[in-house]
Formats: sequence, structure tokens, C-alpha cells
Amino acid sequence: MSVKADRLVRNARHVAFFRKKGRAGKARQLVDGLLADGAVEYPMEYPVTTEIPVDSAEYVQQLSRFYDEWCLRLAELARSEQVIVLCEGDPFLYGSFMHLYTRLRERGDVALQVVPGIPGMVGCWHATGEPITWGDDVLSVMTGTLSEDELVRRMDTAEALVVMKVGRNLPRIRRALVRAGRLEAAWLVQNGTTAHEQVARLAEVSDETCPYFAIVLVHGQGRRPEAAW
Amino acid sequence: MSVKADRLVRNARHVAFFRKKGRAGKARQLVDGLLADGAVEYPMEYPVTTEIPVDSAEYVQQLSRFYDEWCLRLAELARSEQVIVLCEGDPFLYGSFMHLYTRLRERGDVALQVVPGIPGMVGCWHATGEPITWGDDVLSVMTGTLSEDELVRRMDTAEALVVMKVGRNLPRIRRALVRAGRLEAAWLVQNGTTAHEQVARLAEVSDETCPYFAIVLVHGQGRRPEAAW
Repeated sequence: MSVKADRLVRNARHVAFFRKKGRAGKARQLVDGLLADGAVEYPMEYPVTTEIPVDSAEYVQQLSRFYDEWCLRLAELARSEQVIVLCEGDPFLYGSFMHLYTRLRERGDVALQVVPGIPGMVGCWHATGEPITWGDDVLSVMTGTLSEDELVRRMDTAEALVVMKVGRNLPRIRRALVRAGRLEAAWLVQNGTTAHEQVARLAEVSDETCPYFAIVLVHGQGRRPEAAW
Repeated sequence: MSVKADRLVRNARHVAFFRKKGRAGKARQLVDGLLADGAVEYPMEYPVTTEIPVDSAEYVQQLSRFYDEWCLRLAELARSEQVIVLCEGDPFLYGSFMHLYTRLRERGDVALQVVPGIPGMVGCWHATGEPITWGDDVLSVMTGTLSEDELVRRMDTAEALVVMKVGRNLPRIRRALVRAGRLEAAWLVQNGTTAHEQVARLAEVSDETCPYFAIVLVHGQGRRPEAAW
């Protein structure tokens, strides 16, 4: 966590965060032990996550209403209080907060400050102990929600790969990596940067029970001045 | 800067960092005012940067010798002291430290710890105030050192783009963006996250005097649940 975020979290009086129903919330878990006594917590529970397709009208409508309602609630709270919204990783890289951010910005009556974070993928490539890009390597970051053909097409034009939102998409991601000739070089990092982190070669892991918070990585192997010894 | 890096830097007794000859060094500037009194500094000055082509034998040989020598020097120092190597951004994403890291690891006699950082591109997309990826957007990160045709090919398969190492490559990057139909959506962030940060639409900026520490960004515009109001 950044020094700036750490200070904001420790001094926060009102703390909002997203979570799946019935879960503690990933972002909330990251600040265990950091919140001040008496800080008021606002768990923002997604009405749906993976129960219905993300491109269905029902999903879009439910999420839209959810973000609209929390935007209203946080804006009202922000009239008299400073409110912190916790995010895991970087809030501007596939973050749920972005949906609140654009709505709050559109209102125009709330002072917004967004603090950059270390993206989850950065923690994951450090977990493998290998640099992700060398020389002129291109790094492509994609989500496992893409179709198999789209995954292959995107994998074909990059030396280094990051696939986020893995979970139940792992079998399709694996098939795409095989077609792109990249499976042998792929790593799977499950629950990266947490106490339950697991790092393995993807070829040595089964498709079963992979969590949503997992990332597939392929490291670039680009140009570098080799050691002379 | 992360809480972990901040603590390491403040307590460091031996601090190494890369810099171009005659310059203060970007990484060193980031810790101005943080180093302890009496900390010993080790500026590692690149023998060449952009004077000769990066793919020439002469360049590779000079850099290779440079990294070999500093690896030896730091390894000797590390026998009795803890040494910090400063990096800007994330050390495993196009970082010079990677060349020391692989050499020191190969020696096997130095305990290495690498601390993840917030990549420069993250600070730059925050400087624009716009999220970089939505929904299923693919983000491709590339270097401005690629040929124009390669840049176009890579730009064509990603919704969100980051082009690093801009500087004198800006005219070629601009031509590639025009061919890829992305110029109007492109931003240029010069000296991102520093006191001299400048953020502008690329189409409104000339190619002249662009610093090496500049990043071109194109934001993804992917799927999102729109506000209902």
C-alpha cells in the first residue's frame, strides 16, 4: 500500500468498500488492523456477481441501479464528512470504483481524490520472481471473460501476457494459450499478495477450484545485454 | 511510494541508483529529503543511453560490462552491508534493475528482496483523471522504440494503449496512432507524477522537446452499466 493510502486509511472516519454478499470483501481485508476505532463501515454489496451473464440486460440494470444508489448515498454523506472508498489494486484499472467515480463526477458537487495503487498484476509477477517485460516486449493485459478466439487473437500480438478475472474462465484461457503456443510459459498466481498466495506453472495445475482472484502470466523474453561471464 | 519502500529508504545506509551521466537521476530525485544523514550513495552512471543504437553490438557490449561491474561491486558490498537499489516505477516492468537482479541471482551468494512499486504508467493515467480500462478492454503496453509498422500492428489489437519511452520517438508514435485511427483519443503525459508534470491531448502538442520520461495513453471505452438518471 502507498504511504498516501496508508495515511488516509488510518485517519478515516467513514470507510466504504465493495464486497460480494456474505463475504468479508477483499479490499476490506487488506486494511484489517489499520482502521481507527470508531470508523463507520459501509459495505457495498454487489446485487449479483457471476450468477447471471455480465452482458445480459438484467445484470446491467441491477448493477446500474446499485451504483446509482451508492453514488447518491456517498454524495449525501460527503456533504458533511470525508469518506474513503477502499479499492484493491489500482482503482483505475478494471476497478468497480470507476462506476462510482464517473457518477460522482457527473454530479459535480463532490470533491473527489483518487489515489493510485499498485495493480494486483504487479504483485503477481513479483510473486513469480521474474521480470515481466524486457527490451521492446509488448505487455497485453486482458480479462478471462473474452471469447476463446478473442483471447488467441490478443495473445498473438504480445510477448508478455496478463490475464485477469480467471476463476471459472480458466479452461477457456488454457485452450487459448495452447492455440497461441504459450501454455508451457504460463504461470498461475492464485490469491496473489495475500496469505493464501499460490504460484505454479499453469501446465501443472488443474482447472478446478480456481478463484476469481487469480491471474495468468506469461513473461516476456526480450532483448537484454547478457552477462559476459 | 509504498509503505514498505518508504521504510527501507529511510533506514538505508547504502543507496545505489541509476542515472544518466551529468544528471541527478530520476529515482534519486524521488527520495530527496527521505535519506538518512550519512547514507552512502552509489550513482550507477549508464556508459551510454541514446547516443548509439540500442541494438548495436557496441551498445550491448558497453551495457553488459556496466551491469557486470556493478553486480560485482554490489555483491561485494552486500557481504557486509544491506544495500538498497532505488528504482522509479515498478522494478520488474522495463526496469534497469532487472539486469542486476538476474546477475546477482545467478551468483547465488546475495540475498535479494525486490519490492513492488506503482508503475509510472499508473501515475500517468491518474494524471488524466480517466480510468484506463473498462469491462473487457484489453490494455497493451509497448515501447516507442518499436518500428512504425509494429506499433500499428500492436495498437490494432487493444482497446487501451500505453506507449512508454516516448522522447525522440514521438513523431513515429504519432504516425502509428494516425494509421491506427487512435490519434484523436491519445493523451501525452510528460514528466508524470513529478513537479513538472504536463498533461495534454497529443493532437494539441508538437513533437518537439518531448522528454524520454513521457507516456502516451489511449483510454479504453468498454462496457459499463450506465447511470440511469
